[in-house]
Formats: sequence, C-alpha cells, structure tokens
Amino acid sequence: MKRTHNCGELTLKNLNQNVILQGWIKKIRKMGGMVFVDLRDRYGITQLILNEAQAKEIKTEYVIEVDGIVLERKAKNEHLPTGAIEIKVDDLKIINQAELTPFQIENEIEVLEDTRLTYRYLDLRRETMQENLIQRAKLNSVIRRNLEAKDFIEVETPIFGKSTPEGARDFLVPSRLNKNKFYALPQSPQLYKQLLMIAGLDRYYQIVKCFRDEDLRMDRQLEFTQLDLEMSFATPEDVIFIIENLMKEILWEVKGVKLPGTFQRLTYRDAIEFYGSDKPDLRYDLQLHDLTTIFQDTQVKLFQAHQGDDVHVKGIVIEELLSKTQLGELEQVAKQNHLNQLAFVKYDNGNWTGSIASQLTDHEKQALIQEFQLTKPATILLNMAEYDVISQAMGAIRTTLAKQFNLIDPKRYEILWVVDFPLFEFSEEQNRFVAAHHPFTMPKKTSLNDFDVNKKQALASAYDIVLNGFEIGGGSQRITDPMIQKRMFDAIGMDEATIQTNFGWFVNAYKYGAPYHAGIALGLDRIAMILSEQAESIRDVIAFPKNSSGIDLMSNAPDYVTDAQLDELSIKTTK
Amino acid sequence: MKRTHNCGELTLKNLNQNVILQGWIKKIRKMGGMVFVDLRDRYGITQLILNEAQAKEIKTEYVIEVDGIVLERKAKNEHLPTGAIEIKVDDLKIINQAELTPFQIENEIEVLEDTRLTYRYLDLRRETMQENLIQRAKLNSVIRRNLEAKDFIEVETPIFGKSTPEGARDFLVPSRLNKNKFYALPQSPQLYKQLLMIAGLDRYYQIVKCFRDEDLRMDRQLEFTQLDLEMSFATPEDVIFIIENLMKEILWEVKGVKLPGTFQRLTYRDAIEFYGSDKPDLRYDLQLHDLTTIFQDTQVKLFQAHQGDDVHVKGIVIEELLSKTQLGELEQVAKQNHLNQLAFVKYDNGNWTGSIASQLTDHEKQALIQEFQLTKPATILLNMAEYDVISQAMGAIRTTLAKQFNLIDPKRYEILWVVDFPLFEFSEEQNRFVAAHHPFTMPKKTSLNDFDVNKKQALASAYDIVLNGFEIGGGSQRITDPMIQKRMFDAIGMDEATIQTNFGWFVNAYKYGAPYHAGIALGLDRIAMILSEQAESIRDVIAFPKNSSGIDLMSNAPDYVTDAQLDELSIKTTK
Repeated sequence: MKRTHNCGELTLKNLNQNVILQGWIKKIRKMGGMVFVDLRDRYGITQLILNEAQAKEIKTEYVIEVDGIVLERKAKNEHLPTGAIEIKVDDLKIINQAELTPFQIENEIEVLEDTRLTYRYLDLRRETMQENLIQRAKLNSVIRRNLEAKDFIEVETPIFGKSTPEGARDFLVPSRLNKNKFYALPQSPQLYKQLLMIAGLDRYYQIVKCFRDEDLRMDRQLEFTQLDLEMSFATPEDVIFIIENLMKEILWEVKGVKLPGTFQRLTYRDAIEFYGSDKPDLRYDLQLHDLTTIFQDTQVKLFQAHQGDDVHVKGIVIEELLSKTQLGELEQVAKQNHLNQLAFVKYDNGNWTGSIASQLTDHEKQALIQEFQLTKPATILLNMAEYDVISQAMGAIRTTLAKQFNLIDPKRYEILWVVDFPLFEFSEEQNRFVAAHHPFTMPKKTSLNDFDVNKKQALASAYDIVLNGFEIGGGSQRITDPMIQKRMFDAIGMDEATIQTNFGWFVNAYKYGAPYHAGIALGLDRIAMILSEQAESIRDVIAFPKNSSGIDLMSNAPDYVTDAQLDELSIKTTK
Repeated sequence: MKRTHNCGELTLKNLNQNVILQGWIKKIRKMGGMVFVDLRDRYGITQLILNEAQAKEIKTEYVIEVDGIVLERKAKNEHLPTGAIEIKVDDLKIINQAELTPFQIENEIEVLEDTRLTYRYLDLRRETMQENLIQRAKLNSVIRRNLEAKDFIEVETPIFGKSTPEGARDFLVPSRLNKNKFYALPQSPQLYKQLLMIAGLDRYYQIVKCFRDEDLRMDRQLEFTQLDLEMSFATPEDVIFIIENLMKEILWEVKGVKLPGTFQRLTYRDAIEFYGSDKPDLRYDLQLHDLTTIFQDTQVKLFQAHQGDDVHVKGIVIEELLSKTQLGELEQVAKQNHLNQLAFVKYDNGNWTGSIASQLTDHEKQALIQEFQLTKPATILLNMAEYDVISQAMGAIRTTLAKQFNLIDPKRYEILWVVDFPLFEFSEEQNRFVAAHHPFTMPKKTSLNDFDVNKKQALASAYDIVLNGFEIGGGSQRITDPMIQKRMFDAIGMDEATIQTNFGWFVNAYKYGAPYHAGIALGLDRIAMILSEQAESIRDVIAFPKNSSGIDLMSNAPDYVTDAQLDELSIKTTK
C-alpha cells in the first residue's frame, strides 16, 4: 500500500480520517494494556496507539506500515506539529525488521565520532543530522535561484585535469588509455572559469567538488565543495555587490536573519592590527592595542629583552579579574602561538597587580588607563614580539577570552570583507616570493607600477569574505593583460620554459581577446556548518565524510586493490 | 566604465539613449567612409557605426568598449532582436587585442574537431556552442526546481569511494595518507543513495559526475553527468510517475514540446521482437516481422542452411524500390552485425525480383503480401539467424533505412519505457550468469520464487527510459530483504567471503531497518545532446570534453608528472 500522509503532517484538521503511515519505530511505551509508539520519518513523528497483540512483534527501528484512524490526543504535545493527534491502528504490517542499533537514534548521544561514521546511515537518522542535510540542500537551492536570476550560467568543468606544480598538492589519477600519464583532480576550477570568460560566457557559476591532498586538520576534507563564480566586464566591486546580495538572501531564506545593506570592510592590515587575524570574528569587540609607544623606555624586563624596528608590544583588555586557571589557559594559548610567556596586569580600583605590575612606572600606568579607558576592574594581557607573531598570538588570546567569558551570541551573524591583501608571501622553504593567492591575481592599482620591485609592499586586488570568524570565501580581479602576467611570472621567479610547460596553454588563450573579469569561490561546507548552529565540524554537514586520516570508516575506503587493477594502469606500489 | 546594456537588448525603445556596450568584434565592414561593426557578447549582436579614424586600430575578436547613441537603422535586420537599431559611436576604447584566431568564430565552420578542442575557448564563442551550454544550464535548473517541489533533497555523495570489482573498471586515486591504498571514483552513487534511504532521507536527488574507465566509443566520456535519484516507500510506478512529470516539464520548458500524459511502455521482449533494440527510436515505424513460420518448409537455400529451435527468419519492409547502392549499404550494416549477407526481394506490381525471388513459392509470396500488407512497390530485407543475432541485425537495418529515406523528423520527440528486463545475462568470459543491471536489483514479482533457478527466464523489476532511440536512463526496485539479497548473490556465484570483502559494509546496513525503495539515474550529457538538436556528439554539450583517447587537447591532460609526486604517493610507473 501507499502511505496517505507522512509522519509530520497530520493535525486536528485530519480528525477521524483513515490514514496509512509508513516509518521507523522511534519509541515504544506500554501503559495499561495500550501501547504507544512514536513513528518517525524525515518529516516528523506521529504517535500511534496499538493494542498489546498488535505490538507483540515490534521493536525500535523496525520499519512498519500502519492503517488507522486519526483521533484527538488527550495529553497534547505542543512541541510537535502532530502533537494534537494520534493514530488508533487497525492494521500493522512489518516492512523490515531491525537489529539492535549500536547507538540510540536520538539527538543527544554519547558516542565516539568513529562509531557514528562507521554506521553513518544510522547517524543520519538523527533529527539534527537530517536538519543539517536538509538545510544544506536549501542553501544550494537559494544560491542557484539567486544567481540564475542574475544571468549566471551553470557550467560543469572537468574533474580530470592537468597537474600544475604551483600551489597545493594534487590528487593524481593514472590514465590507462595514456600509459604512464596522470590526470590531476582540480583544486579549483580557476583556469577553466577564466577560459569561460575568454569564451564569452559572461557570467558563470558552479557548485563543484574540489580536491586538495593536504594533511587534514580539524575542519578540512580531502574533497570539499565550492560555489565558484566568475564575471566578465567586472571589477571587485561588481563581485562584492553580487555576493552581498547573495549572502543576504541566504541568511534571510535559510535563517530568517537580516544582514546589513552593505557589509563592512577591513583592510588586511587593519584586520591584523586590531584583531590579530585575517578572518576576525566581529560578534564581539575586544580589539588589540599597540602599546609599543607606551613601553618605549620601559623598565619592564620582559620588554627590554628584544628590541628592533619590527618588535611591538600589543595588549588586550577585558573588564574582568581573571582567575589563575583562566590566566593559565591563556598562557597555554600564548605558548602555542610562539610566545614564551604571557604578561598580565590587573587593575582594580586603582590597585595594580599581576606579572609585570611591580615594574610599571606611574607614567606607564596612566598611559594604560588612558589607552584602555579603564574605569572598572580589568585585566590586561600583553607581550612583546615581532609584529606578525605578537599580532597573531594576541588574536588567539582574543578568541580564547571570548570563549572564557561567553561573549559570543550564537544567533548573531557578523559578516565582513577583508581587502587589500598582500600580493606575495615569502616562502622560507623555497627562499623566494610566491603568489599569496595565485599567480593570476591582479595587483591593486596602487601597486601596478612597482609590484615586481617592491614585492613586500605590493597589494593584490583580492578580497576575502569572513563570517563569524571563518573565512568563507575569497576572490580577485584576474590579470587579463599579457604584459602584466609576464611581470607577475617574473616576480615569482618563473622562467619562460616553466611558464610554457605549466601554463602555456592557458596564458596563450589571453592572446585572442579577453574581457576583464573577476570572481570568487565560497566554501560551502563551512557556510553550511556555520548556518547549522549545531554542527561541531564540517563533517556534521557532509553526508559521508572522511575522518582526519582521510578514511571513510563506513566503507573502509581507501583500500588495497588487486595487482590486476594496478597492472592495467601500469603502476606499482612501492614500500 | 560599466556597460549600460548588453549586446542583445537594445531595440527601438532605446532610441536616442546614450549607451555603453562592451564585447567582441565579430565583423568589420567599410562602406563609403563609414565602418559597420558587429559587436558580440553572450546575449546577442549589436551593430555599431564608426568613422574611419575610430576604426583604424581594431580587428575582429578585439574586445572593445563603446560609448554612443542608439539610432534607428535604415536597413533593418529582422532576424536579429537588435536588428532595428544601431549605435553611432562617440568613443571607442580597446579593452584587449586579439591575434588572428585559428578558425573563424561562426556557426558553420569547416575545421577538424581536434582544432576546435585545442582552442576550446574560441570554439565556445560560437553561438551554437553557447546555446548548447545555456540550454544545458536551463535543463539542470528545470530538473532541480521540479524535484525540489516534490520534496526531493539534494545530497552530495563522495567522489572518493571504495573500489568494487563487480561491474565496469574503476578509476583509482592513490592515497598518500594511507600508503599503498587507493580510492576509487564512483561509477554511480548507487550504494550511497541506497544508504540514504536506510538513513531515512526519503527522497534524494543529485546532479553528479560519475566515472567509468572504459575504452571510449563515439558518445562516451570518462567522466559523465547523471541525474541520480532514489525514493523510499516507493515502487517502480512511483518512480515512473515522478520521471514522466519531470520529462514533460523538461521538454515543455526547454523545447516547448508537449509529451503525452503517460508514456508508452514496451517490454524488453517486444522491443527486441519488433525493433531489434532495447532502445528503439519510435519517431518512425518500420517494425520487424518474424517470418519463421512462412519459411518453415522453404526451398530458399539461404534459409535451409541453419535450422534449430532458436533460429528465426526476420524481415522488414519499406515501400520503396531500393537502389543497388542502398542495398549495398544495408548489406554492409548486416555484415557489421554478424550476418554473412542480407537477402532482399522487391515487389512491384505483382512482379518479384531480388536475391531470393526466384526461389520463392507462390505460397510464400502470398504469405509475404499478407504479412506486410503489400499494395505499393516495396522492398523486403530479410535473413535467418539465431534470435538475438537476427533481431539486432534487422534492428540495425531498420535504423539505416530510416536514415536512407530521411524518415526522422528532427523536431519530433518520442519517449517510452522499456520494462521487464532480464535479471541476469550470461557472461561468456566468466562462464557464469552476472547481474544484468547490478546485484541489488529486485527480481520481478513473477520471478521472485525461482529467479535463482531459472536464471535465463528471470525478469528484473527494472526499467529504462528511451528518447528518440537513446537510452537516457534506467533504474529499478532495490532488494531490501536480506534473504532475497543472499539468494541473488548465490545466483551470481558470489561466496560469503567475497560478499563480505566487497559489499559487507553495505549489506550489513540493511539489518537495521530499511524501507522499500526504488530509483533511477538519467544521463544528462545525452539528454542535453538530444535537446540541442544541433549537437553531433555529447562533446558538443560539454564545455571541456576529452577526445576519444581520453585526452584534453587544450591542456594536454593527462600528462607525465614528476618523480617527486609519484614518490610521495608511493607508486612507480611500469613500462
């Protein structure tokens, strides 16, 4: 038989109707000769009433079909859409039996993630996980409708591409038809989307799997999903306009949250200066302060140790008197961020205590009161180091303080652009400047004359979008002038032969008439995780994720394959 | 500056407006001191008028920006939406120059496909190719809206999966983090989507890349795109209902074509019997006729040679008198389809001629007249062979006749279901019955008792959908009863150990409460090709396809990689 309704839709409007429902048995309770069963499907839960005979053979997680009549419940459940009714069952049929599941199908479970991943098909029965997947589907849907309404065309780009040594490590696929040659899986469709602009497609988008063979950290997967887009005859402002509109629609449609008309922007320089991060979480304030001037002639021993142009004292204040435990935790964070220790002073009603309090001059105390506008009891955390090191460390102190004092409203969404990124970064490993983003990123107008000379100062026409402290996307104006492209390759020390081998086919395309164009890629796993509000990692918004060793614990992929398979591909494994 | 309009939207309504356009120069014509330029972008073509000075530095395929005023054209072009206006250009700026392109950017070009693929970004500038991609994007869009309105959830399944030896050849990806182990790229998300049903997702869909390492034929690619879907508490009739609604909406929205309310169905047996194909093109009639009875005591030598239970005479008639050339071509087709020769008789006003005419008895002639309802001049093509061979060969003759006599209306769409497929096929290579579809396909109810005994007769609860002679999709009811699954594995000779190694993780999932479910996968490359009406292969509806050797001629993928890359993956190539 076919179900007449799902388990989430019956209400008092359906009173006395005969219905057929199908679903999983979530719970069985016996009460005075009657048996109450919660029947579950993706759409909700409906209460059934059986007699003991009918209930004799059923257990939780059995899949059943029931035929019955809709009655009004005496004790209504206001939390459930179907909470006002129940089904008096006339007929029950077992569709499939179920063994005892290795964990209960409940929202709150105490079980190792490994077990959840091994039995992912059971883990996904939990309401929270289903909500995550359903909301993610909605996210995709909102994105596609928004962009299609703006004339963006969805175009699929290849999964089998060419390996390019510049950038992260590629996944390789041996080609059987082309012996000893390999395809590479795309780290992004970057080159293809630029070619689509040269082809005149004008506005392209794609929700697409990308691949990066990196050692996995907490919130990474070997395969991840991006919203990739590119626009012709467009500058960063055009991309920003499109994405602000898109993000506003996403937050509104998926979460009912209104984002501001235009998003705030921070330069990369200010983001580091005030938040010690290029992806600051602006749901709370706690800015970093540069205290170098205050301490320039100090007697504080800690600040006399290292001096130099690039050495700064930076500090952060919180209007709390921190406990020893809290300070200990912060010191740990400081050490994980390349500081030897963390200095602190407590200010309480004119009294100064703390690790460097006794060494402070009155002048310094006054300066600190003024700098931090001290009026209430407060603790200042501070230290000295090279600019990048102290900034990043104090940025980590900042986010730890926010956690310690619960400063984050989980219902709040703070979104911003970080702009004016450096064009290059210096690679210690390769002892040369490399492209910070990728070598097709246009220098900022103000750097156009001298980016290949003053590499350290050169800025990129690039932008990141940051939501609640997560970088959720980044993009740039692309180089469309062959002369600028040549200077860029020169600047990162790529000679003509290497260019030809790696990018010749691509650079060549720009000779045939290219529009100026700009684009962006958004990380959809991360966005889905943030919007979920209950996900603890991106794995919670991916149906079948890999664990941190790149293993699918359910199917046990990757696995050994047969010698015959390897022979056909003309490869051998080495020890 | 920003464009105020695109090249496809200006009409007489915009008369005397100042506009800015950006685009590619398609054509330059000089006429009496004036220069006419066709400016092209994705949206259309607009005519510009320049003076000779302005036109001095431009060439075709240059990207330019023009600032000018909209004027009414004297000689209007009715074929062009912008054909009533032209732009008198005040200011022209060259955005990017273009070298001479290796072929002209025109719809009709005489150029090797290899050249088109090498310069794909130029090939994609052609209007026909842009239309193909735009229409394909619309196809995707219609599909998603249709299915989302029916509560289907888009869920992404992994690209990195586990290799399963049953089925076609897998592409493998060496895992660096798990030395000497390999991921396999999915041939389809079959197992994952079934697990999503066990997880209670109820209705799933995905537009997804799949991979099959096969030797390439004309209309295959190593990576291809499927619409994959699965429904819980559903039977084939439910899937058929959903897909008929979807296909009707696709044909209507994309092509303005109305398909019938319900699609016709053919059993596999009838499809072979009457059309010699399990994917018959019903845009023309030309059914095969079984003539075995007519020739059972024949004097025709050709039909005396082989006799036996499974040997049939089959024929096809066309109301034309075929030329020697046409007959020669058909004979070639017969030979490619395992016949030694092709017999024919011509019937013209009571006269019989042709290869076996002189051997026919009057009785046989009368029988043929009756069987084929001969009234007009006609040619009968016929031969004898084993049932499968003669059916397939005459099916090939049928499609060749349709081409020879131009019987196909390219604007007509004929869609049908082919049902009741065999559950097994015999593999000569492995000397055993293997699953015709895959080993999770439910036997048809009538075969449920004895499918593992009468394998040759066993039918599957499987269905294909066929459009204009192309199989565009297929699906089945899945086995959800562990006992039936066990019988199925037994039937294809898979022992317990092999089951556990290959599918243990999957089969195990059905122990925890599974709904009955059915699904389908549609081949979107093929559907896009058919809907294009101008595509000559699926390559014409794929932005960056591989050629028939699996090579991307543009980027030269696949390619050799460095030893360092292979070392990191712990693999070596062999000669």
